[in-house]
Amino acid sequence: MNKSEQERSFELRAIGRVMVQEGEGCLLQIDEPFRAALKQLDQFSHLMVFWWADKVDREDLRAILTTELPYASGVEAGVFSCRSEYRPNPVAITTVPILEVNLQAGTVVIPWIDALDGSPLIDLKPYIPCCDRIRDVEGAPWTADWPMWAEEADAYFSEHETDFGE
Amino acid sequence: MNKSEQERSFELRAIGRVMVQEGEGCLLQIDEPFRAALKQLDQFSHLMVFWWADKVDREDLRAILTTELPYASGVEAGVFSCRSEYRPNPVAITTVPILEVNLQAGTVVIPWIDALDGSPLIDLKPYIPCCDRIRDVEGAPWTADWPMWAEEADAYFSEHETDFGE
Repeated sequence: MNKSEQERSFELRAIGRVMVQEGEGCLLQIDEPFRAALKQLDQFSHLMVFWWADKVDREDLRAILTTELPYASGVEAGVFSCRSEYRPNPVAITTVPILEVNLQAGTVVIPWIDALDGSPLIDLKPYIPCCDRIRDVEGAPWTADWPMWAEEADAYFSEHETDFGE
Repeated sequence: MNKSEQERSFELRAIGRVMVQEGEGCLLQIDEPFRAALKQLDQFSHLMVFWWADKVDREDLRAILTTELPYASGVEAGVFSCRSEYRPNPVAITTVPILEVNLQAGTVVIPWIDALDGSPLIDLKPYIPCCDRIRDVEGAPWTADWPMWAEEADAYFSEHETDFGE
């Protein structure tokens, strides 16, 4: 790596990890040094979970720039145009309800997450409608039938068996 | 850094940079090796811009875990409960309309962004309602008067002069 490349790379540190317990919901386990940062999070109904897709953190997988969309036959899209984990920086974001926050134990209970058990957490942010909630939104043609609300996603995709994660 | 800490840190690489031109809107300039990843992004109305707050990327600033909220007198909140750039990993996310995508030039024109000129870009994702649009959302008491839609944020915060970025 030459000097200019070094200047343009940054170090992310895990702040905790995702714990997925089959049939028992999910837990975000925050490492001890970062727990104070959870203060007041229980005042919000939803949060954005930033996690690192460490299973695809390999040089060759990070080099993937386009992909044939599994939910749109024949459409090749760039990875900046889909939510695939295969991307130059495998940062994933999932917005979920907050069920419980325990500041002392460093835990946030959530109903589900599309991350594997053990995935490193890199950030949490509260979901704030005036930042994150777009009223007048249009998607690509292949998303035309998808629900307009996160609350309706599970029912829709269960029925249609569409994997929109990749 | 010992071995276990190394295993829990990850390398982010800039994929481009934010260009903020006073009075002329904003441009996301994607570096040449990553431009193919923009394919089909013009099919979406909005995108999530992931950028690195490099001005606060210092060990002492990353150690800040709580902050007195500038918009809520006397409330001390953890940085995972607000959108401050001072956080263990200074990753910021801004959802904005897409005005134009030029795949060859590697540019995405957007109307505004709350990033400084030159901020490194680390990822782009399309805004997808069934992932990102929460219908039944509640915020902390100090956000009770804030608008429920991103489209109304500018008018509201211009009038109230509330800085909700930190």
